[in-house]
Amino acid sequence: MRIVTVQRGEDQLVAIEAPQGVIPLADLPGDLPATALDVVRGGPDALQRIRDALDATDTAPLAPGSFRLLAPIPRPAKNIVCVGKNYVEHAREFQGSGFDSSSGGQEVPDLPIIFTKAPTSVVGPGADVIASHDADGTLDYEGELGVVIGTGGRGITKDRAYDHVFGYTVINDVTARQAQSAHKQWFLGKSCDTFCPMGPAIVTADEAGAVTDLHLTTKVNGELRQDAVVRDLIFDIPTIIETISRAITLEPGDIIATGTPVGVALGFTPPKYLRAGDEVEVEISGIGVLRNRIV
Amino acid sequence: MRIVTVQRGEDQLVAIEAPQGVIPLADLPGDLPATALDVVRGGPDALQRIRDALDATDTAPLAPGSFRLLAPIPRPAKNIVCVGKNYVEHAREFQGSGFDSSSGGQEVPDLPIIFTKAPTSVVGPGADVIASHDADGTLDYEGELGVVIGTGGRGITKDRAYDHVFGYTVINDVTARQAQSAHKQWFLGKSCDTFCPMGPAIVTADEAGAVTDLHLTTKVNGELRQDAVVRDLIFDIPTIIETISRAITLEPGDIIATGTPVGVALGFTPPKYLRAGDEVEVEISGIGVLRNRIV
Repeated sequence: MRIVTVQRGEDQLVAIEAPQGVIPLADLPGDLPATALDVVRGGPDALQRIRDALDATDTAPLAPGSFRLLAPIPRPAKNIVCVGKNYVEHAREFQGSGFDSSSGGQEVPDLPIIFTKAPTSVVGPGADVIASHDADGTLDYEGELGVVIGTGGRGITKDRAYDHVFGYTVINDVTARQAQSAHKQWFLGKSCDTFCPMGPAIVTADEAGAVTDLHLTTKVNGELRQDAVVRDLIFDIPTIIETISRAITLEPGDIIATGTPVGVALGFTPPKYLRAGDEVEVEISGIGVLRNRIV
Repeated sequence: MRIVTVQRGEDQLVAIEAPQGVIPLADLPGDLPATALDVVRGGPDALQRIRDALDATDTAPLAPGSFRLLAPIPRPAKNIVCVGKNYVEHAREFQGSGFDSSSGGQEVPDLPIIFTKAPTSVVGPGADVIASHDADGTLDYEGELGVVIGTGGRGITKDRAYDHVFGYTVINDVTARQAQSAHKQWFLGKSCDTFCPMGPAIVTADEAGAVTDLHLTTKVNGELRQDAVVRDLIFDIPTIIETISRAITLEPGDIIATGTPVGVALGFTPPKYLRAGDEVEVEISGIGVLRNRIV
């Protein structure tokens, strides 16, 4: 199933992206979850009730133009958890850039590097990313696979990790490189308002298929910059989940950005930093295209 | 005013710590906020309505032993924002410890170092801190002043920063030193369940007086380890708020841990890491004592 959140008039509505169009759960019969977080928290039972409601009716989808897509979870209940330097070639380009404040001289990390982005940074597909939040003109993109946790838990082992995945989405981990570097810890340079475009949908794990086969590309103004397969992650999704949940309770709706492949702006000589007017498209096969304009 | 949250039977209740005892808002007449976050979000108007309700009645306080104090905000709406290396002598002891993964060889930082702790790490006064979440036996305490944001905003300048402070609390930024260092970014070593004791109360800014005069001490099993005055922060509260809010919208109820002074466990030779059975007390003058046992 493909779960989205839409703005219709004054209302934020969780909806299903069905073959025939986008259908808000509020338009379906029965007592269905009111938000995407509630869908995730409702687990398989909630998904089954949604499926049943879709099957039982022929509710018309929203008319194109009558709504706007938001991030599938417009306001996460905590910071987005992110993995740094998690593709080999990107780890090298970042280490070589002079902006890596915390490598200790190490190209490829021994252990996952984990930081967070503020939930206030989340915006949806089509939303503007505000370039002036990076006062230094070092704005960069990072196309990433986002993992949405379904069943929570602590001490989740690798072999059970996929049982805890609700689904997948696309994230652009927009970064102010100078702030990321100058403040040593990465939170500030990663958390500016509008710096976490997410969407267009959460695709449930059953529908996404083999996640390691998913293909990620990032284009800037149509130019291909990043092109990778999820299989190439240094620390795979089970390892990430095991590492985070070793002593931290993961909760339904937690979002993990798994890291970005080679091809970010700072990897070029000179760097191809984003500027107002640029359009960034991150696409993951089977999930969709996350398109945002820099303003 | 002193705002606390208590567990009474099955209920979590926001309450006022008055001279005569702890009075839940739910026991007062009128339509008062249901949670501490709602009190903060309600601003001066909510505080005035609470004061009026307290003045208008002689509601009996809770009987001692009939309730348990929780963290004043038991579940923050996002990660706690923390400032690293924000007292000179602590910056030196940490830099000298070999555990500082992101200093770039710098003792005292040029700019605030900002990271976060997961909201799932928050526990209240009297709660147990679970030592085994640090598998390496490098558990440390960090007594800190916590700032609770009242009015939110972005681009808050230093001269207006205190207008955005709702009040103050006490935080113990418990840290697994080996994990903090080995994972480069500090989130994992700082975010284990139970690693953010907070409380006993939020003291509103009007009642706290001159915050720079507040005096912080940390004791372990009665032995004085940290002893500092808030005035000695490298980056003061207005600078911290200006820095974070430059491109990140602060929201009512956001919590900022302002950094810890010299005297943490790793600063001793050999380090005096915490062990099961230890009791840590962080006290800030006018706010109270935050006491937690390591188990």
